[in-house]
Amino acid sequence: MKNVTIACGNGGVENNDLIQKVFYKYFKNDILEKNEDSAIIDSGKLAFSTDSFTVSPLFFKGGDIGKLAICGTCNDIAMMGAKPLWVSCAVIIEEGFDMKQLDTIVSSMKKELAINGAKVVCGDTKVVPKGAVDKIFINTSAVGQVQKKGISSNNISKDDIILINRDIGSHGATIFTAREGMDMSGSLQSDCTSLYPQVQALLDANIDITALRDATRGGVSASLNEWAKQSKIGIVVDESSIPIKDEVQGVCELLGFEAVNLANEGTFLLAINNKDEEKALEVLKRFDQNNKAAKIANITDEHIGKVVIQSSYGTKRYLEMPSGELLPRIC
Amino acid sequence: MKNVTIACGNGGVENNDLIQKVFYKYFKNDILEKNEDSAIIDSGKLAFSTDSFTVSPLFFKGGDIGKLAICGTCNDIAMMGAKPLWVSCAVIIEEGFDMKQLDTIVSSMKKELAINGAKVVCGDTKVVPKGAVDKIFINTSAVGQVQKKGISSNNISKDDIILINRDIGSHGATIFTAREGMDMSGSLQSDCTSLYPQVQALLDANIDITALRDATRGGVSASLNEWAKQSKIGIVVDESSIPIKDEVQGVCELLGFEAVNLANEGTFLLAINNKDEEKALEVLKRFDQNNKAAKIANITDEHIGKVVIQSSYGTKRYLEMPSGELLPRIC
Repeated sequence: MKNVTIACGNGGVENNDLIQKVFYKYFKNDILEKNEDSAIIDSGKLAFSTDSFTVSPLFFKGGDIGKLAICGTCNDIAMMGAKPLWVSCAVIIEEGFDMKQLDTIVSSMKKELAINGAKVVCGDTKVVPKGAVDKIFINTSAVGQVQKKGISSNNISKDDIILINRDIGSHGATIFTAREGMDMSGSLQSDCTSLYPQVQALLDANIDITALRDATRGGVSASLNEWAKQSKIGIVVDESSIPIKDEVQGVCELLGFEAVNLANEGTFLLAINNKDEEKALEVLKRFDQNNKAAKIANITDEHIGKVVIQSSYGTKRYLEMPSGELLPRIC
Repeated sequence: MKNVTIACGNGGVENNDLIQKVFYKYFKNDILEKNEDSAIIDSGKLAFSTDSFTVSPLFFKGGDIGKLAICGTCNDIAMMGAKPLWVSCAVIIEEGFDMKQLDTIVSSMKKELAINGAKVVCGDTKVVPKGAVDKIFINTSAVGQVQKKGISSNNISKDDIILINRDIGSHGATIFTAREGMDMSGSLQSDCTSLYPQVQALLDANIDITALRDATRGGVSASLNEWAKQSKIGIVVDESSIPIKDEVQGVCELLGFEAVNLANEGTFLLAINNKDEEKALEVLKRFDQNNKAAKIANITDEHIGKVVIQSSYGTKRYLEMPSGELLPRIC
């Protein structure tokens, strides 16, 4: 490959390939190799993560780039059982950008920081000439305090089951319809949400959590495939158990997408000890939008490194890691 | 102001104005208000900083965007007397970007990480369609361990003097001449350097350091003015003591710049107790490029919040915070 392609940013096969061949080649170390949502540093006490946000359009149903920039990074901290505390905010703004829009974006960030109990402690503001960036890009990094050690995507075993907190695909479907100017009447909006409150409730209820992962770029397919590879397990998904809203299913059918490949920004997978299924679902359902929380998969020692999906007709197929040109600028 | 202007990213007056009116308005807290090069978190044990790099051209004499992305952020950590340890790397790449150039950039990052004794522990890779970003932007954030507590730009007093480690303005002059296609024969190249080794040597020699600041965007003028305001002191600079290379002076005269306003990427100011002047200069001069290390200013309790510059002819003027459209995309 001589040039970087759009597919290299898809959260799937080509994205991993670029990361392996260029970034890991030079940066390889024990922390990176763990492939967790956040790096665990300072002898296991802190979690550290970074994310850049380039979403287009900047404002969409259910959120904006500011809300997304806090949710996205703080959620990666939360997925390690850590509490987001200190956040950085680095913006790159195109010359001429509307000051009122900037104000709205930063105000959204503040609101979302409060939900996480975190604060912005450092930042950077760059302005580049017209045409050098499309409107505004935001990078946030965060450092959080680990509340429960040992949560890891590398330790899932046959004793675990996989739950999901809510219905899938609404962020991807929302961005797509917004960008294409499709007028979706109805309740379709991004799931963009800060997940730390849900994680804290699970920890407070002493749920025996093995791993957590928010299903962002690459969707549920990417997250499950990563887990299967990292934990050297097989995952068997019951297709009919995955909650999908009608509006999202409609967009998928219209455009030939699979909802399992669509990005989410407030939807996460939980690998927990099977004894805690009921208790965990009860905790999840206390939260808005989580009334469809469900068990979606079992772990097996067949098909190691693979995800098998069983349809309601009893047929089975591999759920592959997404590849190709998925929707860019989704987050 | 209804729209963001290029001047809003100049590291000077308009930049501070934007930060105050939009970002501080919403994010205001005790850590941000300290206005240090890094946030001090975790009960004073750690330093945390972020920086985005949008430099154009990507490759220049003395460095490239990769080297810059590690130096810039790790230097902010070093300026708090902290050792850079954990770094994040978030890239936003334009579709079609040359893979070999990407490899060169990441390889430069690796080299510079080694000089700091730091490693990349988390990252993010986004690819955006052609035209949405100019080639590649990199954000790095870093967390470092504070080696000596209490270094702060808010504590400079009349007992202190101000030193500089080397000659000024070479990064700004290099980027400018490269962008304008001016062929500068001679030794003009960016000062882009990781400063932690110099800071560590100063700490090892028990230099009584009050504050450190690398004179990046806005140059020496911005840093001195920030110190004067933050520490509520007057600063009197001896103009003839500021080391400037002939090549940099030449570019300035040609283009009507002042070298004190030009950006640096390996040049820093030290406020130290006056008793340690000789020892500190000796330590600084052990390092490459530092043979011109010098004392450049005294502290006074006149002109509080201001910087006075004395020319060799005995005339005095205020050295103002830079303002207006300085060179964008310098770092």
